[in-house]
Amino acid sequence: MLVVMEAHATREQIAQVCAEITAMGYTPHPMPGPTRTAIGITGNSGPVEQAARLLRLPGVSEVIRVTAPYKLVSREFHEADTVVTVGGVPIGGPGVVVIAGPCTVESREQTFAVAHAVRAAGAAILRGGAYKPRTSPYAFQGLGEAGLRILAEAREATGLPVVTEVMDVETLPLVCEYADMLQIGARNMQNYPLLRAVGRSGRPVLLKRGFAATVKDLLLAAEYLLHEGNSQVVLCERGIRTFDDTLRFTLDLGAVPMIRQLSHLPVIVDPSHASGRWEQVQPMARAAIAAGADGLIVEVHDNPAYAVCDGQQSLVPERFAAMMAQLRRVAEAVERSLVG
Amino acid sequence: MLVVMEAHATREQIAQVCAEITAMGYTPHPMPGPTRTAIGITGNSGPVEQAARLLRLPGVSEVIRVTAPYKLVSREFHEADTVVTVGGVPIGGPGVVVIAGPCTVESREQTFAVAHAVRAAGAAILRGGAYKPRTSPYAFQGLGEAGLRILAEAREATGLPVVTEVMDVETLPLVCEYADMLQIGARNMQNYPLLRAVGRSGRPVLLKRGFAATVKDLLLAAEYLLHEGNSQVVLCERGIRTFDDTLRFTLDLGAVPMIRQLSHLPVIVDPSHASGRWEQVQPMARAAIAAGADGLIVEVHDNPAYAVCDGQQSLVPERFAAMMAQLRRVAEAVERSLVG
Amino acid sequence: MLVVMEAHATREQIAQVCAEITAMGYTPHPMPGPTRTAIGITGNSGPVEQAARLLRLPGVSEVIRVTAPYKLVSREFHEADTVVTVGGVPIGGPGVVVIAGPCTVESREQTFAVAHAVRAAGAAILRGGAYKPRTSPYAFQGLGEAGLRILAEAREATGLPVVTEVMDVETLPLVCEYADMLQIGARNMQNYPLLRAVGRSGRPVLLKRGFAATVKDLLLAAEYLLHEGNSQVVLCERGIRTFDDTLRFTLDLGAVPMIRQLSHLPVIVDPSHASGRWEQVQPMARAAIAAGADGLIVEVHDNPAYAVCDGQQSLVPERFAAMMAQLRRVAEAVERSLVG
Amino acid sequence: MLVVMEAHATREQIAQVCAEITAMGYTPHPMPGPTRTAIGITGNSGPVEQAARLLRLPGVSEVIRVTAPYKLVSREFHEADTVVTVGGVPIGGPGVVVIAGPCTVESREQTFAVAHAVRAAGAAILRGGAYKPRTSPYAFQGLGEAGLRILAEAREATGLPVVTEVMDVETLPLVCEYADMLQIGARNMQNYPLLRAVGRSGRPVLLKRGFAATVKDLLLAAEYLLHEGNSQVVLCERGIRTFDDTLRFTLDLGAVPMIRQLSHLPVIVDPSHASGRWEQVQPMARAAIAAGADGLIVEVHDNPAYAVCDGQQSLVPERFAAMMAQLRRVAEAVERSLVG
Repeated sequence: MLVVMEAHATREQIAQVCAEITAMGYTPHPMPGPTRTAIGITGNSGPVEQAARLLRLPGVSEVIRVTAPYKLVSREFHEADTVVTVGGVPIGGPGVVVIAGPCTVESREQTFAVAHAVRAAGAAILRGGAYKPRTSPYAFQGLGEAGLRILAEAREATGLPVVTEVMDVETLPLVCEYADMLQIGARNMQNYPLLRAVGRSGRPVLLKRGFAATVKDLLLAAEYLLHEGNSQVVLCERGIRTFDDTLRFTLDLGAVPMIRQLSHLPVIVDPSHASGRWEQVQPMARAAIAAGADGLIVEVHDNPAYAVCDGQQSLVPERFAAMMAQLRRVAEAVERSLVG
Repeated sequence: MLVVMEAHATREQIAQVCAEITAMGYTPHPMPGPTRTAIGITGNSGPVEQAARLLRLPGVSEVIRVTAPYKLVSREFHEADTVVTVGGVPIGGPGVVVIAGPCTVESREQTFAVAHAVRAAGAAILRGGAYKPRTSPYAFQGLGEAGLRILAEAREATGLPVVTEVMDVETLPLVCEYADMLQIGARNMQNYPLLRAVGRSGRPVLLKRGFAATVKDLLLAAEYLLHEGNSQVVLCERGIRTFDDTLRFTLDLGAVPMIRQLSHLPVIVDPSHASGRWEQVQPMARAAIAAGADGLIVEVHDNPAYAVCDGQQSLVPERFAAMMAQLRRVAEAVERSLVG
Repeated sequence: MLVVMEAHATREQIAQVCAEITAMGYTPHPMPGPTRTAIGITGNSGPVEQAARLLRLPGVSEVIRVTAPYKLVSREFHEADTVVTVGGVPIGGPGVVVIAGPCTVESREQTFAVAHAVRAAGAAILRGGAYKPRTSPYAFQGLGEAGLRILAEAREATGLPVVTEVMDVETLPLVCEYADMLQIGARNMQNYPLLRAVGRSGRPVLLKRGFAATVKDLLLAAEYLLHEGNSQVVLCERGIRTFDDTLRFTLDLGAVPMIRQLSHLPVIVDPSHASGRWEQVQPMARAAIAAGADGLIVEVHDNPAYAVCDGQQSLVPERFAAMMAQLRRVAEAVERSLVG
Repeated sequence: MLVVMEAHATREQIAQVCAEITAMGYTPHPMPGPTRTAIGITGNSGPVEQAARLLRLPGVSEVIRVTAPYKLVSREFHEADTVVTVGGVPIGGPGVVVIAGPCTVESREQTFAVAHAVRAAGAAILRGGAYKPRTSPYAFQGLGEAGLRILAEAREATGLPVVTEVMDVETLPLVCEYADMLQIGARNMQNYPLLRAVGRSGRPVLLKRGFAATVKDLLLAAEYLLHEGNSQVVLCERGIRTFDDTLRFTLDLGAVPMIRQLSHLPVIVDPSHASGRWEQVQPMARAAIAAGADGLIVEVHDNPAYAVCDGQQSLVPERFAAMMAQLRRVAEAVERSLVG
């Protein structure tokens, strides 16, 4: 940690900060500069506690932390890539995994139709929402357990493992009965009781980035999961909020190489929710793989015009199949291949 | 609702959209413009369902909704200001309410010292965190029920009603035993199971704006509470995330008059969390009242240099008292007065 | 255009708005809805003037424009892709163009070394700054005309056409003497006198997106150029400002397919300035081509540790050559190829 | 400056960084920490040049600058408040200055009517645009010199000094003939040739914050002006771009106390452009003064429904007069008073 003094800090003020650092059990290293003095701190075995003690001393301008606030998710402490296995499908290895399915489980027919279509086109995992976090209380909130049962049947029928969202601690045991992978949605990325419970479940997790979360925030949310002993965590970039209202969110593909550098956890991309428009899904899915993503999660609907939710961002099965052909070529161009 | 056609939409495409609108049970109103045709829809008794059906028709460029997505929180449907009463203290009436207390309940001594000090300076409600949502799993997470007990004792000792954060459905009954008002934190603003449960509790609620939530999102979150029959809801602006990293968040005071125009619910401001710096609290608290806020929630600590959390943004009691004197003058300047 | 009335607007208020619309020479189309009336306007041959007249009438809640504010840049009015030719190199055709070179022209030796290296690796156009817009007045501001001369000599030596930034109307004639393509930097995207003068020059233009500009703002800035009769305009996505400070800017690759849909102008991507880190350049350059970009502009320096500017984001020639090999494969995967 | 090493940096890598620092003429101070080593640098008499040399060495993770990049605008080097005098009116002293007038000079009649009205209500300076930067090339671009002449006549008639925008170096001499204070608009905040020329003019300057500029960027833009010898600079907060589209911009009032802390230059607020809605002007003007602003710049129009520009954000004279009465009370509450 580094304490930066004000330009006009007096010798006494500098001495007082050094004394306080010593009293805290650390060693101060004053470094006079051209306009101000900075004081380095050593001797700490973790983050310096109670930095506010220093910030409130007279003459102190700023306190700069040097140590990253996360640890278990950091590549500095775990160099090798983590591979998360979902019903036998490895995410984070050499292959690129495509997760696909309807936004919402609407019926057995719809779910089966989409599940068979995406499997035929090469998807490796089935997605589908039974519990839906909706901005408006008047919007459809999902089929609940009935939806989970339909997903499990679709797994039987297609052999595809299933990922679905869990929204609270209460329904977690139920969701665990049916799902191969638990999704934590963007709105719940900092729902700490939920993170802890899902961490303890030991189940593979798909953790979506909150739409106002920095990469650091996302890594800290994942740290909660690993801290509970669960390292089967896949991160998911799904668009952030920015001033540009051309699309629903701004897909931050730069986060993909950044996360791969900072962390050993796999990272995938959701091009459907980011834009909210099906025309964007294909180019952004290609771009995600070219940027180094370990996979994609894509919405497909057999009749999007009649979807109860997010129809405007769902691909029809034919277009999804065409996209998969393109993704195979892009994956090859970056020396990877699609799983499945 | 309005369907906007592409500039080169054909007569047949326009006719197809009109036919689909008719099939949906509504009435289409085509309006040819200089470069494109727009088609108005009437005959709906609520939001038009399945707009995706129209969006996916050939020649359609955009669908524009005219009806606001919230209803119970809207001033259009409830013209008079709602007054929320917390342990006898009215929020949203002619008076301005100051809620104050420590970020975190650390001990009986600290909480009592701060509670007595803020009451003496004129605060009307005591705040204090027993359950703390922390970005890092390594940060102090609160005293839990022990903290709630201390808050209840401080209420006994000072007569101030108590507001404290509830983080999940499981601890809600416990928090309800001790608290006069339930705070839903910024990170939980879109935690819908929690919103529903708190709505059903009937207890007064302090709903903080998520740091990536638009004003509309905040109103829709409140709509969840009112939808469960609880209209005792106070909204709280606490800063949003922007590109400017000078301060922790950007306090959006423009939201105050905007919310008052759109909704009948009271709105207060948290100047402590917005900036993360105690030097900002005083000027921004004054500005909030001048902008028309119904109250403030402010962090005070008797020894901020040793606070376990957010010490750099807490006021010492002397400074808080000095601020209260200023706030009284500003409240008077806008023809209000401080409650209590 | 659509005028949306308040929920409680009276019949008289609606009649008054209709009368005002008629007085403006247009035709009103009132459409009563479940909670409010909307009034469509037809009869206008362009954007409706003086919408404020309507906004200020009692009972009016909102005025929604349907017509896009730009015209010449719109694909609706010019369906075929525009191809911009720079010293014989076509941008916007089937091929993908890589523009490369140093951030700043520092010396003849450095510029020649980099120019030869990027040509050998397959770049089609040389970039280099002679006039540099710098956030701080104390930073190096460029070699000026001496830099332009060096660029012209490097073109002689390598055969690569040259793009360089023009910062004001005064130096425009000078820059036109040396440059094949004029770059308008992000900070000048809304410098209208400069846009007009560059428009009149008739020279090919590289227009960079301002870092707080929406896609619509970028298209409107290009409209200024086309309005002066210059349609030789290439748009450039270079990152926008967001709350995430992990990287310098957030590269908005979703803008690439969006711009291609809305406009006939070519669009390229600058992966160097977006991130400010050379490690990001390679993955984001691949992603840009996969997303459908018509080209890239990349910073290369033969000794980045000693660059006077932006050394941390420059590739060394060897890494640039390795990247070009990757880009060739990605371009092929999306059925394009690199030009040159 | 502080060089932060990677967690696994070797002893040799640390030694190499120290050697490079020594070769640059500075002194390295290695400080081993619990997970990584940081290396302080002393011996520099200004910002460390060529930090990229260090960033590109193996094992280096980050370089953190401690010295603020601006100097002349900093309160650290000039403690006393700067007072800028415009035609005899002091900005930045104990009084609060209200600048008011039409967005655009439309005619002699309109300008005179508004000028007389705002003087009568207590405005101290007249604003009005003769050259207008407009997002669309089809929007009205201002009356030019004819507008300047009308402003000068309005000054004669009312005694109010005049502030008007200058958009380029070419028209600067002309604008200087007529204006008492030169406004640099938000879009030109980083137009460095213009900043330099306005700096050399010696004329009082109103520098508006760019809508994607951090407070630091704004101070650096002002540094360009002071660097040319002109310290008669007033800064203006006018709203920044954020994800929230409820209003046109988000007014960042927290910037006011922040700027006052970091700089000796006066700071005023523009509540009209920030929101784009006249209903917001009054509460936000009150809030700005309560936050400590040295003044306001407000748009007033005698017939806003027919304004050629920004009618929806202009106050009518009666409302402006009513607002001034409120502002007087708020100014008193914070122990200031309105000038004039």
